[in-house]
Amino acid sequence: MNLLLLFDEDFLPDGTARLTGRRAQHAREVLRAEPGETLRVGRLGGLVGTGEVLENTADTLRLRVSLTEPPPERAGVDLLLAIPRPKALKKVLPAVASLGVDRVVLVNAARVEKSYFDSKVLAPAFVQELLLQGLEQARDTRLPEVHVRERFRPFIEDELDTLFGRDALRLLPHPPARQPLTTTGVERAPRVVLAIGPDGGWVPFEAELLAAHGFHPFTLGPRILRVETAVPVLLGQVALLRDNTSSLRT
Amino acid sequence: MNLLLLFDEDFLPDGTARLTGRRAQHAREVLRAEPGETLRVGRLGGLVGTGEVLENTADTLRLRVSLTEPPPERAGVDLLLAIPRPKALKKVLPAVASLGVDRVVLVNAARVEKSYFDSKVLAPAFVQELLLQGLEQARDTRLPEVHVRERFRPFIEDELDTLFGRDALRLLPHPPARQPLTTTGVERAPRVVLAIGPDGGWVPFEAELLAAHGFHPFTLGPRILRVETAVPVLLGQVALLRDNTSSLRT
Repeated sequence: MNLLLLFDEDFLPDGTARLTGRRAQHAREVLRAEPGETLRVGRLGGLVGTGEVLENTADTLRLRVSLTEPPPERAGVDLLLAIPRPKALKKVLPAVASLGVDRVVLVNAARVEKSYFDSKVLAPAFVQELLLQGLEQARDTRLPEVHVRERFRPFIEDELDTLFGRDALRLLPHPPARQPLTTTGVERAPRVVLAIGPDGGWVPFEAELLAAHGFHPFTLGPRILRVETAVPVLLGQVALLRDNTSSLRT
Repeated sequence: MNLLLLFDEDFLPDGTARLTGRRAQHAREVLRAEPGETLRVGRLGGLVGTGEVLENTADTLRLRVSLTEPPPERAGVDLLLAIPRPKALKKVLPAVASLGVDRVVLVNAARVEKSYFDSKVLAPAFVQELLLQGLEQARDTRLPEVHVRERFRPFIEDELDTLFGRDALRLLPHPPARQPLTTTGVERAPRVVLAIGPDGGWVPFEAELLAAHGFHPFTLGPRILRVETAVPVLLGQVALLRDNTSSLRT
């Protein structure tokens, strides 16, 4: 945990913050924060700064908070992600939050196992917990929006434009494609949407529907990657190619 | 599993291959391979091609093997990796194999917990199993070499040049650095070695010793990433910047 995230309900009328539970425990047992020391803190959705420890007892951490800096820049990227197996999703969601993705739509696809919808990993509270881990890691305060959609085609046909906007560059990493990411113009796009298929890939109907809705296919090369590897690889490459909105370059 | 890996001992004198155990079970239960069908196969350390199923019974899969193609190009990258916590190592090793890394030195560092050395994940058989998973995923046949070193300084001072060679570009992703990866000349280097620190980073002594041994610091930006996210992000970026040896571009 590289940042202690503060929620609105932590703030007292006098402007100090009082934390209990997991975060207070972490500050006591891992950070061993003594009164007078300062911790790096951030307010969910807001600024980052420091918290001076006023009190750190068995169940309460009280901080004098000074929030002065913006969190890291956004990546300018959204993901349309075929629902990965639960074990992979538990790795992908913290990574996605730590890399500054704005929106994730977890969508059904032909090669998504139906049982994944019953996984506890998709429960909103579980999703939020995984995202918060990613923010605490990367010292960010802004939660990605996560949406779950059980029907692929209605989402693509009816919701895509509203959710991702029309001016984002839509990209489809897809093995049959020949042109690499460097030819897609990603470095000049105001925003980017990446459509990442399930293990085994999108079926032809899905790839064609995505292409018909403006997703440009490109190749990641001959290596087939697991989704939990492909997501950071792609986000790292997109960030590197984008000058102004890159979140991976200072 | 996108490739069935064959070992020398699978081959019979008549040139066919006979598999038992996990791989035979996978071919029967997941791939449901019937006699006459062909599977994608590769010989460990060698070529890839097809295997025509001759027999697929309760405990034996017999294949007529035709190995004709080289595996994907290597990434041209080695890693010097501070030993991550065992849970992270279980994610990193398959990813590293699937991304075509040649060598991984898992090295002790000041912020590596001593208990990690007792983890079963570091046992050679466990390491090999994780690497094989990565190869099967990426359709590669070449295992990365993995070395474990319990002493940081002697490794850097006495073994570094021998193991990684003198002509590889040595890179140190390190938060205090200012210049991005694009300024390091990585795209022209014959090979690359990335020195990736533990959670919390290299301590100053370690970073200085690495710099004194030719590692160029660069910044990944303000976001602090977990090692299991940083490794694919960095390997993806290095691959993108390297024209000729890139394993991520066709």
